[in-house]
Amino acid sequence: MATLFLIPTPLGEMPMPDWLAPAQLQRVQHLQHFVVETAKVARRHLKTLGLHTPLQQLWLQELNEHTPDHAVAALLAPLQAGHDVGLISDAGCPGIADPGAKLAKRAHQAGFTVCPLAGPSSIVLALMASGSDGQRFSFHGYLPADTATRQQTLKQLEQRSRKEKAAQLFIETPYRNMAMIDSLLQTLAPDTRLTVACDLTLASETIISQPVAKWPRNQVDFHKRPALFIVDSTQ
Amino acid sequence: MATLFLIPTPLGEMPMPDWLAPAQLQRVQHLQHFVVETAKVARRHLKTLGLHTPLQQLWLQELNEHTPDHAVAALLAPLQAGHDVGLISDAGCPGIADPGAKLAKRAHQAGFTVCPLAGPSSIVLALMASGSDGQRFSFHGYLPADTATRQQTLKQLEQRSRKEKAAQLFIETPYRNMAMIDSLLQTLAPDTRLTVACDLTLASETIISQPVAKWPRNQVDFHKRPALFIVDSTQ
Repeated sequence: MATLFLIPTPLGEMPMPDWLAPAQLQRVQHLQHFVVETAKVARRHLKTLGLHTPLQQLWLQELNEHTPDHAVAALLAPLQAGHDVGLISDAGCPGIADPGAKLAKRAHQAGFTVCPLAGPSSIVLALMASGSDGQRFSFHGYLPADTATRQQTLKQLEQRSRKEKAAQLFIETPYRNMAMIDSLLQTLAPDTRLTVACDLTLASETIISQPVAKWPRNQVDFHKRPALFIVDSTQ
Repeated sequence: MATLFLIPTPLGEMPMPDWLAPAQLQRVQHLQHFVVETAKVARRHLKTLGLHTPLQQLWLQELNEHTPDHAVAALLAPLQAGHDVGLISDAGCPGIADPGAKLAKRAHQAGFTVCPLAGPSSIVLALMASGSDGQRFSFHGYLPADTATRQQTLKQLEQRSRKEKAAQLFIETPYRNMAMIDSLLQTLAPDTRLTVACDLTLASETIISQPVAKWPRNQVDFHKRPALFIVDSTQ
């Protein structure tokens, strides 16, 4: 039975073998068929993977936000012909907040094995580093961009964190990070803990996790740097 | 400034260098101070890590469910003396659903750098493999053990998944897996997708992700095998 391997990629410009463990790498070096989020980005990753097949001989198809739903089924063709397939997103774990999940779902429907490999996940790294206990948490993706709605949403997340004893995670478009931090510091209670985890796994990694009252306001520039936000009002 | 490194361990009986990427391993091989969930388990992991210091010369302290809160502060001593410290749980990512989070929180309070390393996370692996889109999800830890309360909770999770368009993840004590699956198949709607991801990263890894109506009832034995459950009624 052919297998769909979900292959994580680094969170920055780094060679994959530095960020995928040897026991994982070995499982995918025989692959000749790949479904990728962006071909250009994927080729850069694949070049470093030590594949047994030259890059130009690989079967490479894109699956991204522009792919119509009806085209996803055709991406199962190599599996149906008995070939293992690798799924790769532009950065991080495929299938988490990216269109690759559609292929994994179809693969299950068609009865193929789906095998996720372990790699860097910004959600998990941020949660580990936050000091929130992680026994319960929610990830919300992007919040509403409109200022008034967003402040209301932040209030709701804070209440939910308190009520459910769960950390609340979300992301923001990096050029809006500073506005988001302003909103958070204005909206949240002084003893709510706010974590901003930025440039995870990179040399410039910056993680600040403090109660709002003690947050180092305006001391760090998070502008245009990929970041995860965690609101924790469990005490 | 001294750093607290959060070091993931394999999900099964495997050597750490197979499951931690080289770029990560190198960052912790100089460590001489460790806070661990269980000393005996940690020693087995540390033996394979290629540390520059012999095992018997390491400073090793436990932090687990038996550690009183007032004893956590003392575990910061090596950081205060300028030494980097490694935090290791029994399996998986420290700080996620384990007492290690308390140390990370204290480290932030005291102004130390907290650096999470990437490794296998059963939550992320299960979510990747589930075919749920992961744009939004919640992790609930353990659900109530009492049958009536549990069925009510499962119904609530299903409704929440539909309303919030978010996959709902939880775990169960492995010897109760089969009872949990029975409850799920009895309680959920036929078109709700149920994923059971079991023995992740091990040779015996088994991941089933199907709508309840098509679930292969009684065909797989999940008894006493560590598993993650995902309920997804987003369509």
